[in-house]
Amino acid sequence: MFGVTILGNNSALPAYDRHPTAQVVTLDQFQFLVDCGEGTQMQLARYKIRRGRINHIFISHLHGDHYFGLPGLINSMGLLGRETDLHLYAPPELQPIINLILTAANTTFSYTLHFHPLDKEGLLVDNPKFSVEAFQVYHRIQCWGFIFREKKKPRKINKQTIGNYHLNAQQYELLKAGENVITDKGEEVLNEAVTIANTPARSYAYCADTVYNPALADKVKDATMVYHETTYLKGLEERASQRYHSTTHQAADIALKANAMRLLIGHFSSKYEELNEFLEETREVFPATDLAIEGVTYRIM
Amino acid sequence: MFGVTILGNNSALPAYDRHPTAQVVTLDQFQFLVDCGEGTQMQLARYKIRRGRINHIFISHLHGDHYFGLPGLINSMGLLGRETDLHLYAPPELQPIINLILTAANTTFSYTLHFHPLDKEGLLVDNPKFSVEAFQVYHRIQCWGFIFREKKKPRKINKQTIGNYHLNAQQYELLKAGENVITDKGEEVLNEAVTIANTPARSYAYCADTVYNPALADKVKDATMVYHETTYLKGLEERASQRYHSTTHQAADIALKANAMRLLIGHFSSKYEELNEFLEETREVFPATDLAIEGVTYRIM
Repeated sequence: MFGVTILGNNSALPAYDRHPTAQVVTLDQFQFLVDCGEGTQMQLARYKIRRGRINHIFISHLHGDHYFGLPGLINSMGLLGRETDLHLYAPPELQPIINLILTAANTTFSYTLHFHPLDKEGLLVDNPKFSVEAFQVYHRIQCWGFIFREKKKPRKINKQTIGNYHLNAQQYELLKAGENVITDKGEEVLNEAVTIANTPARSYAYCADTVYNPALADKVKDATMVYHETTYLKGLEERASQRYHSTTHQAADIALKANAMRLLIGHFSSKYEELNEFLEETREVFPATDLAIEGVTYRIM
Repeated sequence: MFGVTILGNNSALPAYDRHPTAQVVTLDQFQFLVDCGEGTQMQLARYKIRRGRINHIFISHLHGDHYFGLPGLINSMGLLGRETDLHLYAPPELQPIINLILTAANTTFSYTLHFHPLDKEGLLVDNPKFSVEAFQVYHRIQCWGFIFREKKKPRKINKQTIGNYHLNAQQYELLKAGENVITDKGEEVLNEAVTIANTPARSYAYCADTVYNPALADKVKDATMVYHETTYLKGLEERASQRYHSTTHQAADIALKANAMRLLIGHFSSKYEELNEFLEETREVFPATDLAIEGVTYRIM
């Protein structure tokens, strides 16, 4: 299972029971929290996502609607006696804020919090099953996007055609890795004859808060699913640009240029009570678009 | 109207849709926010209390469940273009935290935030209609309670008996202040003959988070309504004491010793899903007790 669950889809001012930004990316047994607006710990409880399974938190930037829920969440993890290490990836200015908060409360955590300051683009987490990379987006203050990638999957053995050969475990691994092998009898086994391509490795690119900038399309090139903010409807490009945000058509244009399979849109301004127009406008340009709705999990496939 | 509306009645870990501590005290046209746990701005919206009417915020102490909603609230006030000054009374360690948060977001407010560090007991706000005082309570870190008092009300003129006298405006004010007056003809008018006592001035004492300490009863002596925490049921006095919290019977004992008219209890531990036992146990000792229930306004009378 590879998917993203929306906990908050609204821009800075909470409204209409829409919450500030937070998402949970699930990749098999791993769960990653991406941004953590105020109330995220309550939203996790509401949608029955266990805080204890989250070992990595990524904060895109230090506008309050993307991290004011973080102190409460990491505090509650401590009150619950968490012992597993927690990894926090965030702009460096967050560290002294957390330290002051802990000092004022005279608190130490039951677990180790590893603070990883975001200061350059590239690989943040590398695991046999997945990787996470950071890339810069274009906002009023320094702001980071994140790409979650499955690792390239091994080829599958074709049970129909492999039966003629006697191979050892190491030879099977070479075949899965896409190579040809020579049997103990000196016979060459061509990879294409005995293996089948696996489903392609999938990826989810979270573009955080950003003004429209076509350079972003290159950074998220070929992502299976792109999340791009649409704070405003089309026609408000000037306001969007002044506030370093984007409109529906701008998000769709990035998805198109990036050759994404699907687009997820969110961070809706509180000036809009209804969201249907966001979907309609974005689909005019990029049909494979979904609205980020709180409580819904979108599969990345 | 003098009353207190509960926005959060739970202890540190949010649970069962109960929220961390926040209360709004309403005194005629004035509204005061007392503590501001995570999600307070959403709770204000839920119970249709206008953020714009709140000009004074009091933070008892710097455990997160009492102030992690504050950065979001004061930020939203700015996004909404607030112009009225806001007065914040809180432990001094909060000021650098707020400053770092604002610097990281590259934000300045549209309004003036006056930070009043709490460093001694006594008068915080003095107004013709009300006063607010701070007093220290007994917690793991420095923690403050607050008393909201109506000013002593003027005596009412008795329309039945005043008709015999010809008095000017100044003489009426003297009578309302409880004094006798001499008419222009030299006749003495006895205050008791022509005035009636007004309803007594009411007060609300918020005792924040505190371990049981009988000295607290003197600090909130004769308050119309006392709010005292009951994190635990009776029988858990040892655990309560270790964590600087109180039980039902301990809260009731303070209300009794303080000669309070009513007691409001809250800050319930997440280990309890049902709250009825809190009410039953507290009423065994102090019958005029209410549970602090979120969304309910308790009149102070």
